[in-house]
Amino acid sequence: MPKIVDHDKRKKQIAEATWRVILERGMEGATVRNIATEAGLSLGALRHYFSTQEDLLVYAMKLVKEKAEDRINHIAMQDLPVKEKILNILLELVPTDAEKMAEMEVWFTFIAHTRHKKEHLDDDGIYKGVQKLIDYLDHVHLLKENIDKELETEKLYALLDGLALHAMFDADRVNKERITKILVHHLNSICTEE
Amino acid sequence: MPKIVDHDKRKKQIAEATWRVILERGMEGATVRNIATEAGLSLGALRHYFSTQEDLLVYAMKLVKEKAEDRINHIAMQDLPVKEKILNILLELVPTDAEKMAEMEVWFTFIAHTRHKKEHLDDDGIYKGVQKLIDYLDHVHLLKENIDKELETEKLYALLDGLALHAMFDADRVNKERITKILVHHLNSICTEE
Repeated sequence: MPKIVDHDKRKKQIAEATWRVILERGMEGATVRNIATEAGLSLGALRHYFSTQEDLLVYAMKLVKEKAEDRINHIAMQDLPVKEKILNILLELVPTDAEKMAEMEVWFTFIAHTRHKKEHLDDDGIYKGVQKLIDYLDHVHLLKENIDKELETEKLYALLDGLALHAMFDADRVNKERITKILVHHLNSICTEE
Repeated sequence: MPKIVDHDKRKKQIAEATWRVILERGMEGATVRNIATEAGLSLGALRHYFSTQEDLLVYAMKLVKEKAEDRINHIAMQDLPVKEKILNILLELVPTDAEKMAEMEVWFTFIAHTRHKKEHLDDDGIYKGVQKLIDYLDHVHLLKENIDKELETEKLYALLDGLALHAMFDADRVNKERITKILVHHLNSICTEE
């Protein structure tokens, strides 16, 4: 009887091999050949799952996004005070541990690479996510009065991505403690006392 | 008599050709051969100025940095109210016009590229620059009381780079008006009335 290999599971393995190759060698090293080697597959076997490098890269990035979404949904379901929950969600969007740092590296390398390509990547969805968080704070009456929600959404989104970028380039200075302190400070500046 | 070509002027021309190539084709297109063609030079002539691609890229990036520094020094010399001067300096650090957008694109492409290389680039100096601005606001007694200067430096630095990144990826939404509004709002949140 032939070995049954779960199609999605194999695709995930290939995506993970892709991340490792990007982390080690950058986008230039992320050839289909190198990824097949890393995944322990023949070129032909890999092409069975992804016919082009573009398909593979787009899938690998979609998985990065899904992993982050899963973590955030998990936090959203927890029974926590609102501000604490929102802080924890924001901390998922900034690399504060090795796993998230690797994801951020892969994501960053990929978006830089696709700036000059035809490949098209979905929006990372973070702007809309931040918008929802601000709306939620408003809904539960935790937002200070006279807050310009559109401005605060853009500001918090910029702050998050700026911190993410700096954590990636100077993880010693921009560590979890410092990121948490800044985000707590920022949330307090737009929220009333709980 | 042989034509006398100013050495530095020619190097600048080559650097500008490098920026154009990076803008059009990304880092992958920035080969010494393509840059020579863009600069209208033979490969041999280009190698007379830069013996390796690395030397050329590092020089081209140093010039981007110097151009921004020149613009900032020019603003610093102007006779303007302190907060307005600081706002104008901050606006130099976020791409709000075509020239700065091109510089940011080149810089971004370059730092993404060098993440996985041996080449080493100087720090962009913006963290220290922001630190100086915050110290200056403190010195002229414009900073609110009980401000944590270290935290505010990190926060403003992240906000600036986040806005720069988003201006690059979504220039329609993150335009000059919106960037200015956010920076004015942020400065007012840490400063006393002038």
